[in-house]
Amino acid sequence: MQAAFLLYPGFTALDAIGPFQVLASAPGVDPVFVAKQPGPIASDTPACSLMAQRSLVETQRPEIVVVPGSLSGFQGVMEDTETLDWLRATSAHATYVTSVCTGSLLLAAAGLLDGRAATTHWAARELLVELGATVATERVVDLGQIITSTGVSSGIDMALHLVRRIEGDDVARAVQLGIEYDPQPLFDTGAIERCPPALVATVRTALHDRGARWISTPASNNYQ
Amino acid sequence: MQAAFLLYPGFTALDAIGPFQVLASAPGVDPVFVAKQPGPIASDTPACSLMAQRSLVETQRPEIVVVPGSLSGFQGVMEDTETLDWLRATSAHATYVTSVCTGSLLLAAAGLLDGRAATTHWAARELLVELGATVATERVVDLGQIITSTGVSSGIDMALHLVRRIEGDDVARAVQLGIEYDPQPLFDTGAIERCPPALVATVRTALHDRGARWISTPASNNYQ
Repeated sequence: MQAAFLLYPGFTALDAIGPFQVLASAPGVDPVFVAKQPGPIASDTPACSLMAQRSLVETQRPEIVVVPGSLSGFQGVMEDTETLDWLRATSAHATYVTSVCTGSLLLAAAGLLDGRAATTHWAARELLVELGATVATERVVDLGQIITSTGVSSGIDMALHLVRRIEGDDVARAVQLGIEYDPQPLFDTGAIERCPPALVATVRTALHDRGARWISTPASNNYQ
Repeated sequence: MQAAFLLYPGFTALDAIGPFQVLASAPGVDPVFVAKQPGPIASDTPACSLMAQRSLVETQRPEIVVVPGSLSGFQGVMEDTETLDWLRATSAHATYVTSVCTGSLLLAAAGLLDGRAATTHWAARELLVELGATVATERVVDLGQIITSTGVSSGIDMALHLVRRIEGDDVARAVQLGIEYDPQPLFDTGAIERCPPALVATVRTALHDRGARWISTPASNNYQ
């Protein structure tokens, strides 16, 4: 199965590489990185660029589509007819259409989530609602064809879920051992529901300052 | 603090991008991808290439060094004097020298782990011992300057540990929320100690077939 990872300027690297590493470990998946034009695509941290191998035009029938999120790069893509058309066209044929983090905003902008349950980075839930989706807060939200997941690191869980769907429990168990996925997070601050408001405010400000200007911060709220 | 991520042909993408995403979220860290020559460097899944921005020669004094592992690419680097010399030279000045997965074999080949405790991918523990280190099986092994971690996905935990050491608990908590690191692995197969022998044999064969010829498999064992 061909799995096309959509790259665009300002994508978040782990959103793409987390699911890539999991899917690349599954025997039946053939990954390809695609973009409007082949060549290096800078992530939202400019130090990191990934190579797109093929153009969207050259990639018409992937069986899996993976859309990574971004700090602000999604805003440009939401106005890019070629990419939204590609998402609509590939989704008409793909077996699985998946997103990580704010990648779901692109699926929504393409009209694929109208009135449907989906998830995104916690800071983008309101944006996802504005784009017509219903927000679910599970880490991985599986509608059958469309699978969305929460922020950045969630793509690993999403892809392992996808491997299980495609190839079954035994293969997914093997993939998990192959990448030694035995996570040991230091804190219990991975989900907004379990974080104190002051920490959430700190992170909103940090994301805003790193480029996510669409995130309102305690300071900017004073002027709203 | 400059954090230099060493790229080399056949590196494992998530080994580099996991810690990159965590460290790039910390306010005081300036990441850079380095290789013998700048330009695209293919990972062990050729579909994925990352851009190296700077050569080793141009990167003499990083404060953090991150060495990703690989299915088999490390074998070439272990015979590459320039890269091993660079690891020794940067380690003489760096505050933190870190590795993910089989990246620790490169630290060992450079002579940085002689008689010291370190970890690696579970399939490479014997190789690490052959190179003079003592194998520890914790997910993250912190000797003070040198920090090694287990296979592939462990770099996220290693880097969060490093952010805590550099910038303290509050910043590390914020980074964890920023990347929504609330892992929910499907199975309890992330650590070899908790896996049945048949699953371990399956994964050894899969890794061998994907390029890690140094891993003995049940079949190849018949001829030993």
